[in-house]
Amino acid sequence: MRTAFYISDGTAITAEVFGHALLTLFPAQFEHVTIPFVETADMAEQVKQRINDRYKTTGQRPLIFQTFVDDQLRQIINSSNGVCYDFLNTFVEPIQRELGVAPVPKTHRTHSIHEQSYDFRIDAVNFALANDDGSNLKNFDQADIILVGVSRSGKTPTSLYLALQYGIKAANYPFVEEDMQQLHLPEVLKRNKSKLFGLTITAERLSQIREQRRANSRYASLRQCQLELAEVENLYQREQIPFLNSTHLSIEEISAKIIAKTGLKRHKY
Amino acid sequence: MRTAFYISDGTAITAEVFGHALLTLFPAQFEHVTIPFVETADMAEQVKQRINDRYKTTGQRPLIFQTFVDDQLRQIINSSNGVCYDFLNTFVEPIQRELGVAPVPKTHRTHSIHEQSYDFRIDAVNFALANDDGSNLKNFDQADIILVGVSRSGKTPTSLYLALQYGIKAANYPFVEEDMQQLHLPEVLKRNKSKLFGLTITAERLSQIREQRRANSRYASLRQCQLELAEVENLYQREQIPFLNSTHLSIEEISAKIIAKTGLKRHKY
Repeated sequence: MRTAFYISDGTAITAEVFGHALLTLFPAQFEHVTIPFVETADMAEQVKQRINDRYKTTGQRPLIFQTFVDDQLRQIINSSNGVCYDFLNTFVEPIQRELGVAPVPKTHRTHSIHEQSYDFRIDAVNFALANDDGSNLKNFDQADIILVGVSRSGKTPTSLYLALQYGIKAANYPFVEEDMQQLHLPEVLKRNKSKLFGLTITAERLSQIREQRRANSRYASLRQCQLELAEVENLYQREQIPFLNSTHLSIEEISAKIIAKTGLKRHKY
Repeated sequence: MRTAFYISDGTAITAEVFGHALLTLFPAQFEHVTIPFVETADMAEQVKQRINDRYKTTGQRPLIFQTFVDDQLRQIINSSNGVCYDFLNTFVEPIQRELGVAPVPKTHRTHSIHEQSYDFRIDAVNFALANDDGSNLKNFDQADIILVGVSRSGKTPTSLYLALQYGIKAANYPFVEEDMQQLHLPEVLKRNKSKLFGLTITAERLSQIREQRRANSRYASLRQCQLELAEVENLYQREQIPFLNSTHLSIEEISAKIIAKTGLKRHKY
């Protein structure tokens, strides 16, 4: 099996995203090795040795996805027996030409505590945790967005993702069985109506998810799921709450769609 | 101000990471516009129009970071007045040559529910929430890692990040004031000792963070923070628990360092 190395003087998260996007295009298996925080020439030499050892053992040149900012470190890795792919170096020159501005290389530009967005993101995570699942309504007025939906329709992981990735303060509110008789918006949601965003899901999928939580319960039964979803979707229509069906979507996709639909202000790019 | 567009037939998350890594190298301000889920020729034509309008209004060619898999859509964007940067297209050919395997283009390869890691990641998020802050010790035996440390040392956001990004089941356990007299590991931590990882932080930073939570409290006082941190660091040394100081690190950096130090198995690359 071919080995892919993701190497950087920082977290190597960018190197991973870069390599992953490319390798998933190919119908092949890879062994993945991430080596973050390669910050000195000594460390880079050790990594070079690992790459060369891997080549020796497998007879195949490892693929190297690297995002070094430091030129000396980059060159040490480039002198290994791996095949090096370096998108920063490839694109910096054409962008420099277009902008007419020279780059200012600096390590830890991304994914560090120095990013402007960092404090927003941590505050937003704490906000999402404190305002999860209708446990605490008193901060809903401070929310950037309030996700609503039946239990297990994807509100909590989506709130956390919006917070962690984008610094968006997302509260969430579940419509529970007891509300279903005459479903209406509680006062706190009414006065924040412009912030509401609904999630829905197919009854079959919801029932599956709830079965894992409480097997053979009424809560998980297809009939109960159908009933709750019909009521909630009615409410969305009646109150003109924008909503989407999360059944076939990942939390990354749900989040991207919500941001695109609402124009929510993000604190991170 | 120059506009940067991030465009894709998927979430555009990869396009954003790609563009962001490059643009942060330049001492310049940009207006950022993300347009995800551009899935038809009609939609691509509309995006092309937006790019051209922006060029007309500003007199500067927008920078376009795109990760289309569909060739027709890519070409529509390429025919706009923006300057297009396309790392997939740039690197696919050399990787294909090295692997001797043709790529199989497919949309929604990354960041979708079809990724193998997806269910692991959602399960791990639910696990992290259910096992946060020592609220529930009964699942600690199922954890992949247990973060320990004083209150507000970064355990919770790190646990969530490990879960969301890597599908790692991270529990966390706080050492609270009442434990400090004779600090020792509770039974559940003793029997999971190989999973423990400690966080520490400077007393000054901890006191700042706690002040935001409970201003002028004993809990937030520098003296109390010093005392708790000294006790906890003693315990780490005595029990040989690996640990790191989170003061100057982002949750991405803390997570990357923990994974590198422990060799934890990740479910996502």
